[in-house]
Amino acid sequence: MLLKRWLIGNPLKTTQAKHERLSKTIALAIFSSNAISSVAYGTEEILLVLVLAGTAAIAWSIPVSFAILFLVLVLTISYRQIIHEYPEGGGAYVVAKTNLGEKPALVAAAALMIDYVLTVAVSIAAGVAAITSAMPDLFVHREALGLLAIVFIVIMNLRGVRESGTFFAIPTYFAMGALGLLVIVGTFHTLFAPPPSPFTSSPEPSGKAAESLTLFLILRSFAAGCSTVTGMEVISNGVKSFRPPESTNAAITMAWMSIILAFLFMGISWMAFFHHIIPKSEETVVSQLARLTFGTGPLYYAIQFGTMILLILAANSAFAGFPHLASILAKDGFMPHQMATFGDRLVFSNGIIVLGFFAGLLLVVFEGNTHALIPLYAIGVFISFTLSQAGMVKRWLTKRGAHWRKKLAVNGVGACTTGIASLIIASTKFLQGAWIVFLLIAFLIVMFQGIRSHYKAVAEQIALDRRGARPPLPQRNIVLIPIGGVNRAVIRAIDFARSRPGDIRAVFVETDPEESAKVKILWAQWGCGIHLVVLSSPYRSILGSLIEYIEEILEKDQNTWVTVVIPEIVPARWWQNILHNQRALMLKAALLFKERVVLTDVPFHLRR
Amino acid sequence: MLLKRWLIGNPLKTTQAKHERLSKTIALAIFSSNAISSVAYGTEEILLVLVLAGTAAIAWSIPVSFAILFLVLVLTISYRQIIHEYPEGGGAYVVAKTNLGEKPALVAAAALMIDYVLTVAVSIAAGVAAITSAMPDLFVHREALGLLAIVFIVIMNLRGVRESGTFFAIPTYFAMGALGLLVIVGTFHTLFAPPPSPFTSSPEPSGKAAESLTLFLILRSFAAGCSTVTGMEVISNGVKSFRPPESTNAAITMAWMSIILAFLFMGISWMAFFHHIIPKSEETVVSQLARLTFGTGPLYYAIQFGTMILLILAANSAFAGFPHLASILAKDGFMPHQMATFGDRLVFSNGIIVLGFFAGLLLVVFEGNTHALIPLYAIGVFISFTLSQAGMVKRWLTKRGAHWRKKLAVNGVGACTTGIASLIIASTKFLQGAWIVFLLIAFLIVMFQGIRSHYKAVAEQIALDRRGARPPLPQRNIVLIPIGGVNRAVIRAIDFARSRPGDIRAVFVETDPEESAKVKILWAQWGCGIHLVVLSSPYRSILGSLIEYIEEILEKDQNTWVTVVIPEIVPARWWQNILHNQRALMLKAALLFKERVVLTDVPFHLRR
Repeated sequence: MLLKRWLIGNPLKTTQAKHERLSKTIALAIFSSNAISSVAYGTEEILLVLVLAGTAAIAWSIPVSFAILFLVLVLTISYRQIIHEYPEGGGAYVVAKTNLGEKPALVAAAALMIDYVLTVAVSIAAGVAAITSAMPDLFVHREALGLLAIVFIVIMNLRGVRESGTFFAIPTYFAMGALGLLVIVGTFHTLFAPPPSPFTSSPEPSGKAAESLTLFLILRSFAAGCSTVTGMEVISNGVKSFRPPESTNAAITMAWMSIILAFLFMGISWMAFFHHIIPKSEETVVSQLARLTFGTGPLYYAIQFGTMILLILAANSAFAGFPHLASILAKDGFMPHQMATFGDRLVFSNGIIVLGFFAGLLLVVFEGNTHALIPLYAIGVFISFTLSQAGMVKRWLTKRGAHWRKKLAVNGVGACTTGIASLIIASTKFLQGAWIVFLLIAFLIVMFQGIRSHYKAVAEQIALDRRGARPPLPQRNIVLIPIGGVNRAVIRAIDFARSRPGDIRAVFVETDPEESAKVKILWAQWGCGIHLVVLSSPYRSILGSLIEYIEEILEKDQNTWVTVVIPEIVPARWWQNILHNQRALMLKAALLFKERVVLTDVPFHLRR
Repeated sequence: MLLKRWLIGNPLKTTQAKHERLSKTIALAIFSSNAISSVAYGTEEILLVLVLAGTAAIAWSIPVSFAILFLVLVLTISYRQIIHEYPEGGGAYVVAKTNLGEKPALVAAAALMIDYVLTVAVSIAAGVAAITSAMPDLFVHREALGLLAIVFIVIMNLRGVRESGTFFAIPTYFAMGALGLLVIVGTFHTLFAPPPSPFTSSPEPSGKAAESLTLFLILRSFAAGCSTVTGMEVISNGVKSFRPPESTNAAITMAWMSIILAFLFMGISWMAFFHHIIPKSEETVVSQLARLTFGTGPLYYAIQFGTMILLILAANSAFAGFPHLASILAKDGFMPHQMATFGDRLVFSNGIIVLGFFAGLLLVVFEGNTHALIPLYAIGVFISFTLSQAGMVKRWLTKRGAHWRKKLAVNGVGACTTGIASLIIASTKFLQGAWIVFLLIAFLIVMFQGIRSHYKAVAEQIALDRRGARPPLPQRNIVLIPIGGVNRAVIRAIDFARSRPGDIRAVFVETDPEESAKVKILWAQWGCGIHLVVLSSPYRSILGSLIEYIEEILEKDQNTWVTVVIPEIVPARWWQNILHNQRALMLKAALLFKERVVLTDVPFHLRR
């Protein structure tokens, strides 16, 4: 308990919840790190596909980057509309549920959940890659470093939203500043200094084309680049976390986020193209660019360190979104109720722990390799993008209202664009791992429905009769006190039982007639006139005889409860429990499924 | 449960206990395998020490073997007296306790417990060595084979005494027959066929003397050979298991056991000496003798297989003795009470499982190596031998009775002989591992005393007042029913509470005023006039508010119990528990250490 307090701080009152709202500056740090950090691997993933067709093919990275830029633009405008329309938080699940119905909503929810887990895993893996690019000695420890980072983030999040906000804002802005400096200085270089070897005269020295440059390859590189826009939806899920006016503040933050993302991504893509950067397995593209621009000096290390921080904070943004989604699902009965309860620190503790666990598992299974995880990524996000845009289209068509045609057009373009991108990603990445995601989505939907049908069954079973009829329930109550001897613990149980009137009986199971005679004598003195029932035990099973006796009573009198009052000796120290028969526990296990039997422990606490 | 029934059979009545008694034939198989199996390693251990002084030194194996033979004789006569004097079972613990007092008794008990575990470990290791001598390919798997054998014996023993007796008798007699055949045929060879190279002309071709032949070395070889007589005490511990007249039957069985042991041991020692057998690490001495006598044919394999069976059955004999000793100790309060309870099959299940666990642990730690375990062995047995003989000497001096002088002389010789042997073993084996045994004995004694002092403390704390004064206990009882809503489970709990008169209150913790209003309306209809207390919850902690309310009641009225009746929904399937808040469990944990608070679950069983 003390450790818990020290790690996650003191509990907060409900009335304090309002004060936990985020300012735009801190919200930008928390919610945009996911989207912006994608620049650390977006360009690299595009190049990794194109380079399969030889180094000349990397020229295609520029048009592909523009296609991604177009996506960013469309998503920004579309999501700003969602933010205004859903000030309570308009995640894909909510939008799909209110406009398209339950099935599409569950698909969106499943896709989002998977993507939150992948966001953590991919970001942590890429963040560790940023560090191992600068310090190759750490490469062998990448899994352990990744797990350590996840544990760190989980603890930070259990401490509460605002505290993690303050804690993460400074490093986020430092990281954005470092990458911004790289792009500004680097682009400045490309404009005023002539390139060392201009692209047109490049003789393709070592570029062996493994594949020819087909449309499919270009689409694959586009699909890989789509990982850049992952995380753009995060703000729309968390509108409620903003200070009022929530929607306006969220929309402004969204615009800022997109501008920073577009600027960094296009800058890095341009520089990579200009300098003929070829992706290497042991060093990231950003690391190569930083070395080219600043040399391996303090500025280089600042950029690598900043990239790592940004990526680790991106993982953090999933920790704001996932528990929120889980709690919405829990309220609708699709996730366990526990997910809907606030933890001590006004955050959804259970969701945080579940997310941390699965992300860690994924990291271990994929050996901390970013490129192995990427094919699984993006597809989930794009499914949810498409579903929420489609939901908005349906909404404008049904609801109409002011400027509905303009709004319909915006979300219509959004739905088409993200739909086409989804198809491209699904078709080009299917065999590389996207099939796992489809399987998982199906599995999660079955799980959601299973959970809800269980809750429905429970609700039906515990529902009150509409006509006000009470179920027939026993009116008498026979109280049994099983005793193994006469001592203070037993007397305490007797006194407890006697504190309310009723039919009270002590029960002693005889295994040895001598012992039994002794108990009878003591009972005469201490039993307060309570009837002592002595049972014989042919099988030496005290438990068995007792249960037989209880069953007899239940059968004879269908109109009675049997309350079993157990005098239980509770040791002063937990390990002393191994020195005591766990009779109470065994009795409980044996009687748990008997109707009309209720057990009561009367603890007698030992002091030493 | 079904698996348990299939593995260990059906439970038996107490009255069936008498029929579980053993005939002499079966008792000999169960109790003597421990002592007799020692011939598989006894001679080998003697030779292993002597050979350090060169091959010529092995001539000393004959006088050393005669010293061991003398020990067998002395022990047989002494223990027959113990058997007659203690028909209830006269283990070293019982003899030492009744004659020498508590401290020596605990030393004997600790020594015996350690030796039971070592018997299992050494016998299994040697049994596996017999098989790997014949099939060298299995050598790498010796640890796994040993563990498998232990698991097998544990299951057999959990099935009950007589069944394991019947199960083990046939192979035991087969094994004794095979070894007997080896000794008879082998000795016949040595008498009528001249030896291939007579001892007197042996030129010591390859024997390099690592040490010189000192008295210390000869004593060490004697100490190593003492492992032969381990297990001779087993019958005296288990007199109660024999058919009546118990003592006479046990004494006869003891004599037969000693004759077989002496015959096999002296035969093997003689043959080994005659054939100049030198112990090898990869093949046992018995295996070498069997190859010499019968060649590597079916008879050789029968002997190796028989030896293995005998050794594995020796381990089995410890499974009869250890739980018995543990139960005697438990009755005296030196071991947990659970050790004293009969299992389903009239055997001491807990003791069997504990023994199997520790023997397996030892086998793994010592990598299944017999020679590494031997130095730990014997010392414990000889300490208990000495203590029980000394106890008998004290007994005759105090009690006297018919022929007491003769009996005193017999046990006096026994005490001196085993005492001297103990000193020899302790001094020669101390640094080789015997110190571990002394440490463990000390540890076990501390544990025994700690357990008893705990039980004493418990007894004192729960003891009734001698003057008949009852401790002042509360007379009123306030019944609280915490509810989260109104449903059938809650109504069931209300009806249970109402079945006895008293001050009954339902408690609802308000987290949302709307919800609270609904509950109040439903309560008016369904509450049966029971007072509904509505608590506010500033920290959103339903548990916290409830506990605060209970504490308030306890403080205000020092003369009342608080009974908390919890309406608990019990899912139809165990995994559905993860879909329910474990409020009852948390409430219990929070209230367990509050005086005057008693919890009662009223289960409401879901059917689907």
